Amino acid sequence: MKRISILGSTGSIGRQTLDVCRWFANDLQVYCLAAGCNWRLLAAQAWEYKPQMIALADDSAYRDLKAELSGLSLEILAGEEGLIAAATEPQADIIVAAMAGMPGLKPAFAALKAGKQLALANKEVLVAAGALATNMVKKNDKPILPVDSEHSALYQCLLGEEQPAKLIITASGGPFRNKSKYELNTVTAAEALCHPTWNMGSKVTIDSASLANKGLEVIEAHWLFGLDYDDIEVLIHPESIVHSLARFADGSVKAQLGPADMRLPIQYALLGPARTANPLPPLDLAAIGSLNFAKPDNERFPALALAYAAGRAKESYAAVYNTANEVLGTAFLAGHISFTAISAGIEAALTAHRSQSLTCLEDVLAVDAQTRKFTERFIASL
Amino acid sequence: MKRISILGSTGSIGRQTLDVCRWFANDLQVYCLAAGCNWRLLAAQAWEYKPQMIALADDSAYRDLKAELSGLSLEILAGEEGLIAAATEPQADIIVAAMAGMPGLKPAFAALKAGKQLALANKEVLVAAGALATNMVKKNDKPILPVDSEHSALYQCLLGEEQPAKLIITASGGPFRNKSKYELNTVTAAEALCHPTWNMGSKVTIDSASLANKGLEVIEAHWLFGLDYDDIEVLIHPESIVHSLARFADGSVKAQLGPADMRLPIQYALLGPARTANPLPPLDLAAIGSLNFAKPDNERFPALALAYAAGRAKESYAAVYNTANEVLGTAFLAGHISFTAISAGIEAALTAHRSQSLTCLEDVLAVDAQTRKFTERFIASL
Repeated sequence: MKRISILGSTGSIGRQTLDVCRWFANDLQVYCLAAGCNWRLLAAQAWEYKPQMIALADDSAYRDLKAELSGLSLEILAGEEGLIAAATEPQADIIVAAMAGMPGLKPAFAALKAGKQLALANKEVLVAAGALATNMVKKNDKPILPVDSEHSALYQCLLGEEQPAKLIITASGGPFRNKSKYELNTVTAAEALCHPTWNMGSKVTIDSASLANKGLEVIEAHWLFGLDYDDIEVLIHPESIVHSLARFADGSVKAQLGPADMRLPIQYALLGPARTANPLPPLDLAAIGSLNFAKPDNERFPALALAYAAGRAKESYAAVYNTANEVLGTAFLAGHISFTAISAGIEAALTAHRSQSLTCLEDVLAVDAQTRKFTERFIASL
Repeated sequence: MKRISILGSTGSIGRQTLDVCRWFANDLQVYCLAAGCNWRLLAAQAWEYKPQMIALADDSAYRDLKAELSGLSLEILAGEEGLIAAATEPQADIIVAAMAGMPGLKPAFAALKAGKQLALANKEVLVAAGALATNMVKKNDKPILPVDSEHSALYQCLLGEEQPAKLIITASGGPFRNKSKYELNTVTAAEALCHPTWNMGSKVTIDSASLANKGLEVIEAHWLFGLDYDDIEVLIHPESIVHSLARFADGSVKAQLGPADMRLPIQYALLGPARTANPLPPLDLAAIGSLNFAKPDNERFPALALAYAAGRAKESYAAVYNTANEVLGTAFLAGHISFTAISAGIEAALTAHRSQSLTCLEDVLAVDAQTRKFTERFIASL
């Protein structure tokens, strides 16, 4: 029985992690749940899964939450301290870091500092603070378990293998894959939220439309698997069936395929390398018929190339990329800026930035704050 | 340095095995070469690779071969005894069994009896005598190294994994994939030899056109990987880029991909699981663009379903399938029978057969002789 603590339990990955815990109730015990502000759903989850502890970041709803759970025996915490407690709970075996964006950084680092094993969906940990996190993981000797479908695919492909020659990360290409450069000026957030293959949270869906998500994944893969940026490629694959591929020195390529359902990589993170039957329908390639592949178009989707540039620039540039993208994506979602302003804003933030060394989490948070300010000014200037 | 003995060195797989030995001259030493009748090529190979021993099955050419090699210090043998000596050479680490058809059976069994490790391209060993060979392999505790691209793909996909739920063997579909049932009555051997994706020997190419080759591979996979026939599927994939796939209990699918070049699986058999760079160009999925998949059509290509039936019937039926197909394929190549008569003849042979238990190689050879006679009568009756 593994005890699981889920940071971000009311988000898309959190809810799907709970599905996996329901499937494998004999193997996985939901030990802690932590959420941002959705106290009603958190309460419902607590009633169903009976965790030992729950935490709500938004402490203004603490009283409502507590009232909703009267009669249930568990510890109820609130605020950042509550998140940190859920992230470092001594009895938990795996901490699922699945909060959206930069707010997930502190709890994930607290978990690493406490020597916990992370199942990581919160890309920011490795993008904004890759070197720091990687050093802590090495010290703990508990490798990060990837939850992203792409990194899970690579992790599965590399089982038992030598270091690969290339990692090939697939990208659906998002809803705007076939739009011209000029059409991209006028696409709306509502259109961006209609993802063709994956059902995800709104931040990831917008990032997927701009290919910034793939950029974040390239940087994440660099830290997870230790390959140079030159050896990490992105391949457009609209069907989202091949979740990524690894090429070895001899030219042999291994791919991991499956239905576009996040519960599969979540299950692998929590129970792998063991393979256990679940209720998902099996993949039927004959019914799918055709799998397509193409090079990404850097001209129409400049956010991907900017991620490579930020990753290669080392130090604080990837943190700048990450924060600028987060702020710009939120502004696009709110209808304040155009879609093409996202990559323009990232580029402006990277250009304006002067490299800083990141020796502790506070350094990362300082770069975040500074980039946030710059990007907000950029948005105001449009 | 591994010492390699190649049975069938002048055939398609043999020649490609020598290419691999040339690429990795520091890791692979060509120790013995054995061929059927092509003494000129065997002599040329001996001059290039300087093996310790060569053997020619056709002893009538022994004198010519010997003359051609005057000045070269090596042992030159002939006849079946020569093949057996090459198959059992005490100094050889791996015996590559790559002869075409049933003549390869005796040398391969001699190698297994001598406790040698087999790299197996000679499907007959596992199709005609699967239970016998598998018992010997278990006793030797040296697993068979698959050389077929499909079985090599599965072997690579299973590295480090639990027993899979399904094996999915891909098939190009051959040159007649898009022919109607009636057009198949009049296709010629010359047309069958134009394989769309693979460059192989003539027997395998004809078998590939009828899907009998895929039938043989299903039976081979059953013995190599220990799965029931219900858990081995065939998937038509005209591009021959995905060489096979394994599905695990959790629904995750692993695939091995690569250029359609037999030297890749040969290299993996001889040097795997180590991965070493070779001169082959890397796979470029974006350039390939599209990978297609479809169910095989049992009505137009009945040889595949007949292989499942023969495999499921156990005992001697797979041996009957194998021999009948070999005899009928040869007759089709010679222009004596129509393409559709191949599967009709296999079905007739299976229907006429009464199950026999195969307790030794002689039993297998008796079923072979008896089926050969039946099938020749069937051909004469057409």
